[in-house]
Amino acid sequence: MLTIAGHSFNSNLLTGTGKFASPALMAKAIAGSGSELVTLALKRIEQVQDKDMTLRHLRELGVRLLPNTSGAKTANEAILAAQLARDMLGTSWLKLEIHPDPRHLLPDPMETLLAAEQLVKDGFVVLPYCPADPTLCLRLQEAGCAAVMPLGSPIGSNQGLQTRDFLRIIVEQSQVPVIVDAGIGAPSHAAEAFEIGADGVLVNTAIATAADPVAMAHAFRLTCEAAAYSKQGKLAQPAAGAQASSPFTTFLEPS
Amino acid sequence: MLTIAGHSFNSNLLTGTGKFASPALMAKAIAGSGSELVTLALKRIEQVQDKDMTLRHLRELGVRLLPNTSGAKTANEAILAAQLARDMLGTSWLKLEIHPDPRHLLPDPMETLLAAEQLVKDGFVVLPYCPADPTLCLRLQEAGCAAVMPLGSPIGSNQGLQTRDFLRIIVEQSQVPVIVDAGIGAPSHAAEAFEIGADGVLVNTAIATAADPVAMAHAFRLTCEAAAYSKQGKLAQPAAGAQASSPFTTFLEPS
Amino acid sequence: MLTIAGHSFNSNLLTGTGKFASPALMAKAIAGSGSELVTLALKRIEQVQDKDMTLRHLRELGVRLLPNTSGAKTANEAILAAQLARDMLGTSWLKLEIHPDPRHLLPDPMETLLAAEQLVKDGFVVLPYCPADPTLCLRLQEAGCAAVMPLGSPIGSNQGLQTRDFLRIIVEQSQVPVIVDAGIGAPSHAAEAFEIGADGVLVNTAIATAADPVAMAHAFRLTCEAAAYSKQGKLAQPAAGAQASSPFTTFLEPS
Amino acid sequence: MLTIAGHSFNSNLLTGTGKFASPALMAKAIAGSGSELVTLALKRIEQVQDKDMTLRHLRELGVRLLPNTSGAKTANEAILAAQLARDMLGTSWLKLEIHPDPRHLLPDPMETLLAAEQLVKDGFVVLPYCPADPTLCLRLQEAGCAAVMPLGSPIGSNQGLQTRDFLRIIVEQSQVPVIVDAGIGAPSHAAEAFEIGADGVLVNTAIATAADPVAMAHAFRLTCEAAAYSKQGKLAQPAAGAQASSPFTTFLEPS
Repeated sequence: MLTIAGHSFNSNLLTGTGKFASPALMAKAIAGSGSELVTLALKRIEQVQDKDMTLRHLRELGVRLLPNTSGAKTANEAILAAQLARDMLGTSWLKLEIHPDPRHLLPDPMETLLAAEQLVKDGFVVLPYCPADPTLCLRLQEAGCAAVMPLGSPIGSNQGLQTRDFLRIIVEQSQVPVIVDAGIGAPSHAAEAFEIGADGVLVNTAIATAADPVAMAHAFRLTCEAAAYSKQGKLAQPAAGAQASSPFTTFLEPS
Repeated sequence: MLTIAGHSFNSNLLTGTGKFASPALMAKAIAGSGSELVTLALKRIEQVQDKDMTLRHLRELGVRLLPNTSGAKTANEAILAAQLARDMLGTSWLKLEIHPDPRHLLPDPMETLLAAEQLVKDGFVVLPYCPADPTLCLRLQEAGCAAVMPLGSPIGSNQGLQTRDFLRIIVEQSQVPVIVDAGIGAPSHAAEAFEIGADGVLVNTAIATAADPVAMAHAFRLTCEAAAYSKQGKLAQPAAGAQASSPFTTFLEPS
Repeated sequence: MLTIAGHSFNSNLLTGTGKFASPALMAKAIAGSGSELVTLALKRIEQVQDKDMTLRHLRELGVRLLPNTSGAKTANEAILAAQLARDMLGTSWLKLEIHPDPRHLLPDPMETLLAAEQLVKDGFVVLPYCPADPTLCLRLQEAGCAAVMPLGSPIGSNQGLQTRDFLRIIVEQSQVPVIVDAGIGAPSHAAEAFEIGADGVLVNTAIATAADPVAMAHAFRLTCEAAAYSKQGKLAQPAAGAQASSPFTTFLEPS
Repeated sequence: MLTIAGHSFNSNLLTGTGKFASPALMAKAIAGSGSELVTLALKRIEQVQDKDMTLRHLRELGVRLLPNTSGAKTANEAILAAQLARDMLGTSWLKLEIHPDPRHLLPDPMETLLAAEQLVKDGFVVLPYCPADPTLCLRLQEAGCAAVMPLGSPIGSNQGLQTRDFLRIIVEQSQVPVIVDAGIGAPSHAAEAFEIGADGVLVNTAIATAADPVAMAHAFRLTCEAAAYSKQGKLAQPAAGAQASSPFTTFLEPS
């Protein structure tokens, strides 16, 4: 359903480990989501090495780990974080995140590209979180990134696909998978991302902060499963004016 | 999952019979959708009485029929059509549709209310298609309608919930089920309707005119099933600014 | 620029008298707006008869008064209010407002049509505030209303033209002036109304509650004046893709 | 009203010279717009040196010239074009444009930053056209740019402020003027840009391709003049629900 760097996943839904009330709840929600690719922050890894819980849960679930470099403000910091993550977790998969601004957490396009170029050379499978900037996404693809992860709206804002018109261009141009990250705050947002042509979505906050994360994970699972059928079914284009579903409007006239 | 006039349905997805390439395809798509409440135009009924196909398919599926008065331009025409439908199909369930304008097919609020008042007195279970007008919806409820069916955008336009801000008020005020009708052109639109609080959606054009109606029906089915989990899970409110999913942004600082 | 019931106004901007900090400030703001047609609530009239200030200011400005029936919950109440207003103010011009719901203040389509029919018979020049419902607007026009005043979004919400797709149909169908009322919270909203084809806008809250109502009135005045030039200039249609403003992109190639 | 690099302009409206039917019409439209800062493509300059018309008109109007590097696909090409423009026109003011993609004409963030850094060192007054990327805009400001020119939507698309949520962050963070460029296809779009807090807008296509460019120029002039009053007037925040303009809803009750 989703193939990244030659590796196939049954689910087009990526999830994260942040903001859950407990590691156990996180595990249940991720299991319920069907997600097979799960991102986690390096700082969180360090913590859990001791307590052994988040990581143990993820190992038990059998999901592929996607450590991220959240907290890095420069390319150099991100590269260092990536190396630490590879050493600690034994995976070269990496979600590259560089956001110097602590308020809006928006990714830095220049540092992200710089780091991506280096990390690809160093053998990482790089999935960069980035602005929904079609030119940048092409450059990241040329740099050898395994996918691009343009943002829908600011992280954790749950405000949906404010960048939809640029996502459309990114999808049209991209030869690597496009995974919409950040801002997907409801199943309708995920559905819209797939309708635009995205290959995957990453959802963390909307699941983790829901009143019932396991139920919400299941809602996203079904919505993301629906996307495959919707793609196969292929929607007709929206019409400018109304068209009757029931065009036989003459039933009372003499036949 | 959806209860109308004391009758419970497992599915919150209503479908229609118009615009399909063949009755057989229609039957497969409706089966794939999981829908248990299916609307059909009276004129279509008359036709199929002879050929016996659409109706036979619907009977075999075991769905509840919801004849509609599409084509009626006045309350009187709609009332006459309703009586014919009851006689022919043996059901008092009715989707009341009155749209005098052949171009935009927008419902007439006055005639709809007039007809609804009479039809309720005559023992019909009335589900009126209507503008997304909160005051009108309250009046239709007071008139004894079993549900209200406000439009999302013009019929067959597939343009989604252009009336979302009024749908929100309708949902907040309504004591009968709110079923969003018209304009739901993609699974994301259906998902949004449920997130706003709708109890059901009616989808016809988006399924019938898809390249593969059966696949599209299945996409809507999963999306509508997701709505129940999403409601149970209860989303957190969208935030004004960004919030980090991975708030531990100090991993490179000395601890 | 705007002609209603055979009476021409230089300004396409209608204003109101509510929510101002003082009658003097109201007068200055209305003067700054250039508005020549000003609505005021009957209750306000009764009050000011004593204090004599609001009305005196409006008389001095030389604007045409447009008393409204705000507060009326039924057609009968509105008709009574209209008669009182005509007696007190000596004008048969009337903004018909009927909103039974004290929370959302949305107009009642049925009662509004009923009252309009009667008031037109009684010789009033009726401008009904109404839902952005194309069918209803046609019926109000048929009833002899001098203009229709569909809402952009709920009164005082300042949320702009949430009903834009229906306003477009209303404009296309209407043979009387279309004046967008309610929800116009910023000059950009007024500009959009005119771009859609509206003949006028009514702005009250956005001016009255601005930090500096006189400056804001002037902002709306210029924006509404711009509309006449914009209409004359006639915009090209939005393009689907990008088009270079500076198409000579070969400057570095040998010529 | 708009101050860039210590130079004050009475108008916050920037215009361009592309797409007009003739130089004479261009001159009339620019005069009608009140614009004092006008961009033109280098290739166009080369052409007009011979024919002497566009440039002669601009000189007569007394506007400040803002040559642009449209057509440049890399930082090096843009730097070369900038030097040519300075030599030919005797101005160090420059609109920096680098868009490698001939289809969508979207600016390249990396090349734009590289070129900006060099051009500032070379003494240019640099106004870069750029994605609506808050991090990039900060970097351009740090590089010494005199203003930033984030895009509203793709060039020439006339689709308005699709990037509004990012423009808001850019305005909030920026210490240099923010001039919204590209996508402003109607006066309402310009008005919205100012309401978001932009310091200026650049409009070319919407004026040049209007049926009557001079009238449309005047429409934009009034709208941009309105922005100063609107800013002074300061709008109240949009409310969540309705609020009555005429709150005295008890006029028929006994007092």
